[in-house]
Amino acid sequence: MFDSLQYLYISSAIAGLGFLVTIIMFCLVTRHKNSDKKSAHISQLIRNGAMTFLRQEYSILAAVIALAFGVLYYVFSLPAALAYTFGALSSMFAGYVGMKAATRANEATTIAAKTHGEKPAFLTALMGGSVMGFVVASLGLIGLAGIFYLFNDTVHDVINILICYGLGASSIALFARVGGGIYTKAADVGADLVGKIELGIPEDDPRNPAVIADNVGDCVGDTAGMGADIFESYISSVVGAIALGAHYYAGQLEYLTLPIMLCAIGLVTSLLGFFAAFVIPSKIETLLQKATYLSIILFIGGAYGYLRYMDMDMALFGSIALGALSGIVIGLVTDYYTSGRPIRKLAETSKTGAGTNLIYGLAIGFESVVIPVCTIALSVFVSFTHFGGFFGVALAAVAMLATVGMTMTVDAYGPIADNAGGISEMSGFGPGVRKITDKLDALGNMTAALGKGFAIGSAVFAALALFAAYMQEAKIAHLDLLDPAVLAGFFMGGTLPFLLSAFTMRSVGRAAWKMVIEVRRQFTEIKGLMEGTAQPDYARCISISTRAALTEMLLPSFIIILAPIAIKFGFGASGALALGGFLAGATLTGVVLALTMTNAGGAWDNAKKYIEAGNLGGKGSDAHRAAVVGDTVGDPFKDTSGPSLNILIKLVSVLSLLLATL
Amino acid sequence: MFDSLQYLYISSAIAGLGFLVTIIMFCLVTRHKNSDKKSAHISQLIRNGAMTFLRQEYSILAAVIALAFGVLYYVFSLPAALAYTFGALSSMFAGYVGMKAATRANEATTIAAKTHGEKPAFLTALMGGSVMGFVVASLGLIGLAGIFYLFNDTVHDVINILICYGLGASSIALFARVGGGIYTKAADVGADLVGKIELGIPEDDPRNPAVIADNVGDCVGDTAGMGADIFESYISSVVGAIALGAHYYAGQLEYLTLPIMLCAIGLVTSLLGFFAAFVIPSKIETLLQKATYLSIILFIGGAYGYLRYMDMDMALFGSIALGALSGIVIGLVTDYYTSGRPIRKLAETSKTGAGTNLIYGLAIGFESVVIPVCTIALSVFVSFTHFGGFFGVALAAVAMLATVGMTMTVDAYGPIADNAGGISEMSGFGPGVRKITDKLDALGNMTAALGKGFAIGSAVFAALALFAAYMQEAKIAHLDLLDPAVLAGFFMGGTLPFLLSAFTMRSVGRAAWKMVIEVRRQFTEIKGLMEGTAQPDYARCISISTRAALTEMLLPSFIIILAPIAIKFGFGASGALALGGFLAGATLTGVVLALTMTNAGGAWDNAKKYIEAGNLGGKGSDAHRAAVVGDTVGDPFKDTSGPSLNILIKLVSVLSLLLATL
Repeated sequence: MFDSLQYLYISSAIAGLGFLVTIIMFCLVTRHKNSDKKSAHISQLIRNGAMTFLRQEYSILAAVIALAFGVLYYVFSLPAALAYTFGALSSMFAGYVGMKAATRANEATTIAAKTHGEKPAFLTALMGGSVMGFVVASLGLIGLAGIFYLFNDTVHDVINILICYGLGASSIALFARVGGGIYTKAADVGADLVGKIELGIPEDDPRNPAVIADNVGDCVGDTAGMGADIFESYISSVVGAIALGAHYYAGQLEYLTLPIMLCAIGLVTSLLGFFAAFVIPSKIETLLQKATYLSIILFIGGAYGYLRYMDMDMALFGSIALGALSGIVIGLVTDYYTSGRPIRKLAETSKTGAGTNLIYGLAIGFESVVIPVCTIALSVFVSFTHFGGFFGVALAAVAMLATVGMTMTVDAYGPIADNAGGISEMSGFGPGVRKITDKLDALGNMTAALGKGFAIGSAVFAALALFAAYMQEAKIAHLDLLDPAVLAGFFMGGTLPFLLSAFTMRSVGRAAWKMVIEVRRQFTEIKGLMEGTAQPDYARCISISTRAALTEMLLPSFIIILAPIAIKFGFGASGALALGGFLAGATLTGVVLALTMTNAGGAWDNAKKYIEAGNLGGKGSDAHRAAVVGDTVGDPFKDTSGPSLNILIKLVSVLSLLLATL
Repeated sequence: MFDSLQYLYISSAIAGLGFLVTIIMFCLVTRHKNSDKKSAHISQLIRNGAMTFLRQEYSILAAVIALAFGVLYYVFSLPAALAYTFGALSSMFAGYVGMKAATRANEATTIAAKTHGEKPAFLTALMGGSVMGFVVASLGLIGLAGIFYLFNDTVHDVINILICYGLGASSIALFARVGGGIYTKAADVGADLVGKIELGIPEDDPRNPAVIADNVGDCVGDTAGMGADIFESYISSVVGAIALGAHYYAGQLEYLTLPIMLCAIGLVTSLLGFFAAFVIPSKIETLLQKATYLSIILFIGGAYGYLRYMDMDMALFGSIALGALSGIVIGLVTDYYTSGRPIRKLAETSKTGAGTNLIYGLAIGFESVVIPVCTIALSVFVSFTHFGGFFGVALAAVAMLATVGMTMTVDAYGPIADNAGGISEMSGFGPGVRKITDKLDALGNMTAALGKGFAIGSAVFAALALFAAYMQEAKIAHLDLLDPAVLAGFFMGGTLPFLLSAFTMRSVGRAAWKMVIEVRRQFTEIKGLMEGTAQPDYARCISISTRAALTEMLLPSFIIILAPIAIKFGFGASGALALGGFLAGATLTGVVLALTMTNAGGAWDNAKKYIEAGNLGGKGSDAHRAAVVGDTVGDPFKDTSGPSLNILIKLVSVLSLLLATL
């Protein structure tokens, strides 16, 4: 036994600290009193809708887990099956807790905005987001440290079991992201098409029957979906790194535990960054960035100290720093393309109609791919050649994700602020409160774009770590593109993200269509709805979104799961090679398509908001109408299809890795 | 010397026969008399506009050629520089002759429709297209056979010189496709945005100042651009195959000349298919397909006979048949996605507005990628493993392109029919003539979609042949994705098609914007234009398109040319490996993006036409307005950015191959 196992105790203790913060924050945001009946009622509706969706989704997931449990138990072992279940339940638990907090924090933020002003409201929303942030980080850390501690006697076993743990997280992420993404956009597009475009009533207007579903959608898509996505990346990168460490540094337990220790360090520095947000004297516009950068810088310092203290190969520090900094670069580029000069130009093109707005928005999306992907490529190259081979690449991935406590907190802040705006609008709190929530929401939109860029970047890094681990496990020394099986798998893999995107885009279209019909029906059949004298049937719209999301998510999910299995066995003796090529192809087209979609979507969204802020004729102008069309296309791009691709590239990798251990 | 060199004489004789047919057809379509002054005037305007563009483009290209001549002479040899110039001039000559014929044939087709009816008009347009078809096939064949014959003493030399010949064809294709693509869409989008959308005047209305530029655009984009593109594929696939043959069958001249002989056989069967179109008793709706299939089937038979007669390795026949048949499969799939059930569904989604039309259209584009790319992947796998390794793959590419005489004829038919419709509309020939030309145009649209799918499929095959040849020349035995340089190059290559697409999309946007302003200006300043009592200033619109196309094409073109050079030298000692990865990445994302764009674009175009045919409310309905937005986005997709990617994947490959021979 190495001493370094003892560090797993420390990791667990840090995870415990993270849980403690989670619980405190949870209590703080849920134990508020709301004396305003209307807003209490509305937030109750949102909460119930979100929980109904989660309950129904989780009952389907229970069946998926049971099935996977049986397969893994039969093919591998009981511990493998249990680890899978543990990973899946962890992800679901994190989603549940984070959602519960978010759907209370939105109300608390509205109240704070009304009674205490801007900064308290901002901090309330941030605290609400921190529940998701720290539950993800702490749960992941305890899971990884615990499994490693329990099964460290045989390295092969522990890796197989960790992979199953990761697969559990991945499978939940798949359904949460695809299902949540379809839910949120069906509600959003449906609400907008009838409300904003056909009837000309404002966003978040309580007369719109789909308005509660739209607010629920923000929670289930952007909070629960994003949480499961990041949780998966977090686990996957560590699992990939440990698997590679076992080959690069066989028997040297301090290297095998290094990825876990990096997560522990990252959790500590995330906590420091989070609390710093309460004490730094700064305007709220830049507070989120400052806190995030602080966490990352402290993390880099902490990692350096740990490597020195443990007397480990200092070259690895290069990879760690590179990974953490790459995350910042990708975030900044995303920020530029979704809020900088390109947005104003995009808004300009709206003046000549929807066609030119779309052409220009797509061009922004295409161009936004270049710098992030080249950054990743160069980070990989430098990490590999100078700082520890593929193990270095995997550590870069871990480093990018180690401060997930902070980055996820910022991500989860966004939909809370968005919802707070919705609640204050529907409760009739007046323009003063709305102005505050709008500002918080704008900050959230910027961080959402950052968060999405970060999610993709980290997904690629995690996928690369898994990809390299796959090669080790499959005993593939060279993945030669001149081999016909590799080349064929490579091209076929490249089509998978396009197939998935086609399915998810159409699913949103179909689900939104059902919503449009229902909303139109209510406006026709319910007398007095338009005049505000009658209540719409919110529940029915919620149930339409829920049902559509859950049925539409199944087929694409199964395609993703079955594709690598089909390649592996379809190519017979060359199956392992073809699958390697398949992974490479799917990862490449997955990342470029995902970046295109999320950035173009973010750009359209913000160009529309720029016009709505009174530029180029403002709301109701021709330019605005054109920008709304762009935003309608961007919605499924950025919130459904793009994020689903993150899951795709990780899930096919982790599945392949598991197939290789067969 | 082998006997098989004598077959090069036969090849040259067949090329001579091809030239003879070209000349006869050229005379037949240009020596008609047009007694109708108005239509003669209009077609004169189109002809002058097209020739002006070509002249100005060619003067820029002359500078490019002079520069490349100097570089190649300095780095390689005089024959290499001369071969480059010969390839470039051949492509330009083919473009000039094909355009000249097309811009006379459009007038001849209109006259034939007016005086002789449907079938004679159809055959006239087809004869016009055959000039481009057979000049491309004959010139390519004589160039390849001639160079091979002259320099066959040393295999290394002949390959280097052939690559330079191919590079000449490629560089012209680059400028012709990118420039032509920007020209045609600037004019089209500009004419539509003001004419159809703002003023509500019909397509091809002579009052629209951009209408002649629009018709010129069809010629320079779809005729000259497509011709240069296909000519490049044709040359590239043969060059790649010969380079591979030199490694696989060193010293066996009958294998090295096999690709050239396949082209000769393909030219003969293309001639047979073309003449069969005049004698087959068939409705014109299916005549183009019948003639094409006949050429391909005869080609497969001829190739079989040749291999038997020469007593060569019959396994290669499998690759040849597979390549020829893959072309048909890709064409059929393209046809399905751009004219089948998906179009009617897409038209349906227009009822809920432009947003849903765009979402659904993009989904069609994404999905349309899957079958063609998987077909290519499996063809490559089977060809490689069963029918001759990478030489087999290269032969499959050659087989797909060998019947280029016929396929290019069909491609070039499209814009002639389209223009004939424009001329008859502008000349006021009435609904009877217009009905005939509309029918011919509809056939052309279908074959255009087919032709574009075919162009991409053949580009991928040609790129793969060059890719494999690159590995041989660069002495790379394994292109290992686990090598950091390969992996980094791979990701960076994957971004290049996105960068190019961003540039070309924006170029079209900018150029169209200039056109919009000019057209609006004319309608405001020229009194009586809207009433039809005054003449618009067509020439000014033509000059705007010309200037915009020529200035906008330079930057993207140079990026494509410089990117592989930067990778090769930027990665130092690992440059050759990084470049290999770069090629793989660029080819993969290039083909999936190109297929998405051309098929989505084709789908939007046809959905709009479906509505215009009177479905779902017909012209002027809300559904129609939504479909027009989709078509506006689809225009640069299918006619500028998508086709430019064909060139990209071939050009980076041929450039890399040349760099490897350094």
